[in-house]
Amino acid sequence: MSTVLRSPGETIREEVVTLKHGAGGQAMRRLIADILAQGFAPGPPDGIGLAAMDDGAAIRVGERWLVVTTDSHVVHPVFFPGGDIGRLAVAGTVNDLAMMGATTPLALTCAVIVEEGFRRADLERIHRSMQETCDEAGATVVAGDTKVMGRGELDGIVINTTGIALADAIVPDAGLRPGDRVIVTGTIGDHGMALMAKRHVLALEGELRSDVAPLNRLIAAALAAAPGLVSAMKDPTRGGVASALHEMAEKSRVGVVLQEPALPVSSVVRSAAEMLGLDPLHIANEGKALLGVRPDAAGRVLAALRAQPLGRDAAVVGECIVEHAGRVILDTGIGRRLVSEVEGEPLPRIC
Amino acid sequence: MSTVLRSPGETIREEVVTLKHGAGGQAMRRLIADILAQGFAPGPPDGIGLAAMDDGAAIRVGERWLVVTTDSHVVHPVFFPGGDIGRLAVAGTVNDLAMMGATTPLALTCAVIVEEGFRRADLERIHRSMQETCDEAGATVVAGDTKVMGRGELDGIVINTTGIALADAIVPDAGLRPGDRVIVTGTIGDHGMALMAKRHVLALEGELRSDVAPLNRLIAAALAAAPGLVSAMKDPTRGGVASALHEMAEKSRVGVVLQEPALPVSSVVRSAAEMLGLDPLHIANEGKALLGVRPDAAGRVLAALRAQPLGRDAAVVGECIVEHAGRVILDTGIGRRLVSEVEGEPLPRIC
Repeated sequence: MSTVLRSPGETIREEVVTLKHGAGGQAMRRLIADILAQGFAPGPPDGIGLAAMDDGAAIRVGERWLVVTTDSHVVHPVFFPGGDIGRLAVAGTVNDLAMMGATTPLALTCAVIVEEGFRRADLERIHRSMQETCDEAGATVVAGDTKVMGRGELDGIVINTTGIALADAIVPDAGLRPGDRVIVTGTIGDHGMALMAKRHVLALEGELRSDVAPLNRLIAAALAAAPGLVSAMKDPTRGGVASALHEMAEKSRVGVVLQEPALPVSSVVRSAAEMLGLDPLHIANEGKALLGVRPDAAGRVLAALRAQPLGRDAAVVGECIVEHAGRVILDTGIGRRLVSEVEGEPLPRIC
Repeated sequence: MSTVLRSPGETIREEVVTLKHGAGGQAMRRLIADILAQGFAPGPPDGIGLAAMDDGAAIRVGERWLVVTTDSHVVHPVFFPGGDIGRLAVAGTVNDLAMMGATTPLALTCAVIVEEGFRRADLERIHRSMQETCDEAGATVVAGDTKVMGRGELDGIVINTTGIALADAIVPDAGLRPGDRVIVTGTIGDHGMALMAKRHVLALEGELRSDVAPLNRLIAAALAAAPGLVSAMKDPTRGGVASALHEMAEKSRVGVVLQEPALPVSSVVRSAAEMLGLDPLHIANEGKALLGVRPDAAGRVLAALRAQPLGRDAAVVGECIVEHAGRVILDTGIGRRLVSEVEGEPLPRIC
């Protein structure tokens, strides 16, 4: 963090971009709200534009919604246990569409920037992985772009994927209401811990695997089980479940009480997190979703999720309340404490 | 270029990506065709998908076409005479849509990757430039993404913009027919020469300015002047007019004869190109388009272009012929010679 001292009365603010600005937490949301979401023509009148800072945008086209989402992927290393940058790029974008309720991708674009000297075999491997993940999701890449930067100007490869889908109804991330149940579709922290283990050569590395996966078919099953009763969705990527739930709670103006014993965490992630002094709630996921569901539909949605391989560990983990709007509270079984939202993901280049 | 020696009979091929693979010429087209456009589900049955390698994709949606295009921008330096990376990103994507015939952008996405330590003031300046260019084009950014890479992992900033538009009819880049006239909308080589002068501190730097501009309104005027009679369009970016015309000629299976005296080149670009031993036909443009027009409509289209500030130097520069399919021939007024297509743009990170 670089600050410039000024005379009293002047605002002291950061004059340069720092790693935490890309880390999915408060610092990033402030940077986006202060600069990047400013000044563009307002979004579609009855749609969701940039200012909503949702997972994507929604634009009315006739009777339907055109949903659009974009993500750049800078993950390091490019190949990691359970996935690679290609799978991550496709799944990340398919999942952002799905989180808006658009579970049938119409088209993806793929723009690749490669460092001079990048191995052609690695590019081929990444490309195959993108294809396989597209097949899994029923998606296809329709347009692409290729740029090369000089040696030392870019660390390896970055991939941007933009996704487009048509949907009959939109599920915003701001739709939680008091009483709604919060469901997580499986174990948390797997992606971030696998990356951390790989990067820091933890002894546990062999057992930790990223959960990166396209969730659109899982989400389609959940939505079909309770039409109109899934009130909000978000995928807990950078900043983990804590950051995603904070954002949902803030925008929906509700409090969220999480039941700690109900949170699905694999034993290997739990051990690794303890070893590193981290909370799995703060660790990134790439194949999980948080769903807000009207109370009487929670059972049906949970059953629909659990019937799918990617949802077999789904659990109801919390409930929305009127009080403590914008806060996330952890009920440990013994007492309650506020869940902190970290400034951002502890590890840079997690996705 | 890195090659690996193999026993006779085996193919010798490049094992790593090199700068020329991002340079817009033959090397890049081969890389895309060999790897990046392989294996995805085929494009839309009556549309234009990845395999067509056009400026973007076109997908049938009801009675209309959804046009999609994506571009990453890695230009160096970020601020250059006549523009900056923000203006380039918006104009580049708006122009790719326009080249498909989609002159009314529905939405843009903007994904920014920034190096740790990038100046916040520069980010704000780039953002303002994007807004202004959006206003000029009647476009809006509806979704974004922000990533930060560590110091030394990325040289400054890269921006991906993806554009979406609805169009009633598509103009492909492969629609040239023998007899069609080729129109260029203004002087050529301005963008590339301005960048080259800035990078190499040429004495001419002060006079050279990039032409970077959104062309959608200019193109709309041209299309309206001769509905259905503009047969092909392409913007001559990386690799310049030579590369763009080669691609159009190859895909359309026609030859193109260019009249050298008719080519609009500013005197300062001509001087700078001579000084550096370069051909303006090979130098990148970011605010120009090549149009193929049915012969009897050429006059109307030319007049419509010249009536607009961005088209005041438009000129008919060539004609399509049956012979020499895929070739571009320069008629110098004294004789004829083949226009070479360079392997790619001479300067890396031109856009």
